[in-house]
Amino acid sequence: MTKTIDISSLRQKCEEAGQGHLLQFWDQIEESQQKSLAAEILSVNLQEANVYFKEAQATLEENNEKIDEQLEPLEPAVCGSVARSTNELIDKYRNLGLSAVGNSEVAVLLLAGGQGTRLGVPYPKGMYNVGLPSGKTLYQLQAERIVRLERLAERVTGKPCAVPWYIMTSEHTKESTETFFQKHNHFGLNKENVILFEQTLLPCFDFNGKIILESQSKVALAPAGNGGLYNALRDQGVLDDLTARGVKYVHVYCVDNILVKMADPVFIGFCLSKGVECGAKVVEKTVPKEAVGIVCKVNGKYQVVEYSEITLKTAEKRTPDGRLMFNAGNICNHFFTLDFLKFVCQKKNESQLKHHVAKKKIPFIDSTGHLQKPSAPNGFKMEKFVFDVFHFTQNFGVWEVLREEEFSPLKNADGQPKDTPTTCRNDLLSLHHRFVLAAGGRFVHSDGSLYSDIQRNNNNEQNGDSCQKSQDEEETIVCEISPLVSYFGEGLEELKNKLLKPPVLIELGPDKKTLDIRQAIS
Amino acid sequence: MTKTIDISSLRQKCEEAGQGHLLQFWDQIEESQQKSLAAEILSVNLQEANVYFKEAQATLEENNEKIDEQLEPLEPAVCGSVARSTNELIDKYRNLGLSAVGNSEVAVLLLAGGQGTRLGVPYPKGMYNVGLPSGKTLYQLQAERIVRLERLAERVTGKPCAVPWYIMTSEHTKESTETFFQKHNHFGLNKENVILFEQTLLPCFDFNGKIILESQSKVALAPAGNGGLYNALRDQGVLDDLTARGVKYVHVYCVDNILVKMADPVFIGFCLSKGVECGAKVVEKTVPKEAVGIVCKVNGKYQVVEYSEITLKTAEKRTPDGRLMFNAGNICNHFFTLDFLKFVCQKKNESQLKHHVAKKKIPFIDSTGHLQKPSAPNGFKMEKFVFDVFHFTQNFGVWEVLREEEFSPLKNADGQPKDTPTTCRNDLLSLHHRFVLAAGGRFVHSDGSLYSDIQRNNNNEQNGDSCQKSQDEEETIVCEISPLVSYFGEGLEELKNKLLKPPVLIELGPDKKTLDIRQAIS
Repeated sequence: MTKTIDISSLRQKCEEAGQGHLLQFWDQIEESQQKSLAAEILSVNLQEANVYFKEAQATLEENNEKIDEQLEPLEPAVCGSVARSTNELIDKYRNLGLSAVGNSEVAVLLLAGGQGTRLGVPYPKGMYNVGLPSGKTLYQLQAERIVRLERLAERVTGKPCAVPWYIMTSEHTKESTETFFQKHNHFGLNKENVILFEQTLLPCFDFNGKIILESQSKVALAPAGNGGLYNALRDQGVLDDLTARGVKYVHVYCVDNILVKMADPVFIGFCLSKGVECGAKVVEKTVPKEAVGIVCKVNGKYQVVEYSEITLKTAEKRTPDGRLMFNAGNICNHFFTLDFLKFVCQKKNESQLKHHVAKKKIPFIDSTGHLQKPSAPNGFKMEKFVFDVFHFTQNFGVWEVLREEEFSPLKNADGQPKDTPTTCRNDLLSLHHRFVLAAGGRFVHSDGSLYSDIQRNNNNEQNGDSCQKSQDEEETIVCEISPLVSYFGEGLEELKNKLLKPPVLIELGPDKKTLDIRQAIS
Repeated sequence: MTKTIDISSLRQKCEEAGQGHLLQFWDQIEESQQKSLAAEILSVNLQEANVYFKEAQATLEENNEKIDEQLEPLEPAVCGSVARSTNELIDKYRNLGLSAVGNSEVAVLLLAGGQGTRLGVPYPKGMYNVGLPSGKTLYQLQAERIVRLERLAERVTGKPCAVPWYIMTSEHTKESTETFFQKHNHFGLNKENVILFEQTLLPCFDFNGKIILESQSKVALAPAGNGGLYNALRDQGVLDDLTARGVKYVHVYCVDNILVKMADPVFIGFCLSKGVECGAKVVEKTVPKEAVGIVCKVNGKYQVVEYSEITLKTAEKRTPDGRLMFNAGNICNHFFTLDFLKFVCQKKNESQLKHHVAKKKIPFIDSTGHLQKPSAPNGFKMEKFVFDVFHFTQNFGVWEVLREEEFSPLKNADGQPKDTPTTCRNDLLSLHHRFVLAAGGRFVHSDGSLYSDIQRNNNNEQNGDSCQKSQDEEETIVCEISPLVSYFGEGLEELKNKLLKPPVLIELGPDKKTLDIRQAIS
């Protein structure tokens, strides 16, 4: 059933768009290569891509510093914070969120198009095992958090519920992600509720507006940024699927944060209680030079401004209470109502989202057919970011959470100082250590003596007591709790007054009620 | 002129103190060894040391958790903060401090008894070169800051001044420190104003109260903690020297903080303006599990409580504004009036300071004369800490500064995630980068394009924008400014509108007025 290629029509299409060079090696490549090249070219709307190029070019020529003067801080009315809320308020939010989850009104949407390049692995980040005692991968931790959350929500509503999990992959990650979930039986989730779809791609341009060929038969395509999400939601039937399931709220997050709280009921409850159509979870930026995007307003519209766009002078501004004026650090963790998503996904709205342009060194085929690896940027990639849709709403909420509880991304290979498998593992173990203490358990050394609650730890913040040297160096206490046991520290009543010898691994017992506690043998 | 040893009197002394075993190998060691052993024993007040042991033993048996319930936060009236002060107030403090410095009323006192063990070098930390473009050591940076501060203060008062520099070394660091300063001509300081003195030592005890021998002819002695300072000040004539020079205020700090502001006029001015006799500079503790000592009140007295003494529950307490209730992180950076120092150094007061006890593995000579290296703690070291004297005052001030401006300690070798030569170097370069921007200079790449103010940097805090991958990794901008040029960012007017190509090194020109700016050649 292979269609024959109408090469003259294809050539005309390319010529009309000023991209005739894409077919310059047509007669030298094999038939199968001709087919895939033609398919690739047809998958791109060349005229539209040309418009994007022109816009991108204009963006690059703009004076970037202009934005700095237009920055306004968030109004206090749109902000909430874990640290500044009473326990009662947090409980109220949580119950509201759990009810929505229990009514199957909440879906989670994972942005997982990135490859583990900086991490140094040839497979998707979600498949990475950071070296926990259980050996669980990021995908498994996330899947089990969904399972646990469903059980917690069902206790509130008294009926079964589902949290469908939409996973946006890319050309690079789709197949391996699919295979991985099948191999692991979707980690206990109903496979109907795990829905993969693929990120849109855009061609890379050289500075003259010519689309780059990466081989004689292959266009240089790059994911259109995680903001390619919106076209994909529309064009791949995801919005229809969400509607058919009766979903009302979508929690969007990024694969690399090992502490991510999927469909966090507290965050959902905060957003519901504020009646917002769009919300961002943030962490406090405390150091002016921290390289983090900032949620703020620009010309009256909500926006994430990248750290490289802010002058230090603006970054250093403080409010009278001593906090940074622009301190809402974006962690790519968002709430949307389905109605809002449907609105922004409309072609007329989505097309208003500007491309972010990055100059890049892009390997290319020169006119003699040879591959060149440039030493200086020779073209650019265009991306949209998921948060760019903030500017469509005046009905917005920002929920500040504690970094040590909710944010520890996996970005770099071990040996780097930050965001490595080791820092991710230790941050998760540290959170679980805290869960145990809060439940009334304690940790003991092999000789039976108690560990102090706070350990000296190389992954801790700096030790301020710079003159005391009498303490021995101590390591992170190894204690892992299965997400099937506890989502936010609940369900650990059995640990009260228990003395635990690290390393500890707490799984759900075979009866799915009691705990299966494995620890070092005395 | 060697004195003969009265062995029977020495033996009696030891026996009376229950420490007769110290002389068990007397007949087997050489005469020179006998002499040094006798001298060592005579340098220790055995009866006093025994009392310390008993007190220390009692301390170990106390329930450490009691302290947790007695913790009270600092009263707002004793606290000040850079971040919460207006520029006018900061200027007022600075001028007050500069006047005191200009009147030669301020001395600095460096705690430099520690060896670079964790750093992996066999010499004092102050002699370490962290790899700045200038190659300067910590000692040189500090010396040059004093020189610059003297010049700034002289402009205020219009007369010459001196900031005497007292350096407390230990048995391990005294000789090499002395030689180092001589070799470098005291880095431009008048050598009369650099005064070395030695930390007191205390014997190590086993759990039965017997002083440990580390060889047949050597008592196991350990520095009595940086709180040994007070006895040393009294017994080595430092108080008299301070008095003779007309010093009224002493700024005490630790050698390993590369950002330390010697005799910081703002801190001094804050303390003078509050009329306190004792003050602590702190950084905000923002994460409950951070391993940092906390300045607070215990039973109505000011105190630093170590992180290992606090339960997580207390560490997690927050005030309604969302900050940690116990957030004054001690960085070993203190202000004292000379009157207060004289008071606490009186024997009857100093002896009230409790020893902190740490169980340790201490190599020892067994009764057969063989060296044993224990695998479990076999004894303890007793230390006093410099901040223990806080409990003598009700007239106390706490000044909170910004970590990125004032605190970056050198503790570990490179390869560790924190407090390494690399993090110290980058923190100093980052501060100087900021000085240049504030003065109106900018940095450009080799192609002339501007660097953005905020760089992605592996030594930055975590990058929150966990979904954006379009930025290329960038390094800390290398820009070092000599302390002789600028103490807190002043004196850089020449840089206004200047474009600098890193790496940049800014030294004082030969005329001692204009800048000598060395940068990458275009």
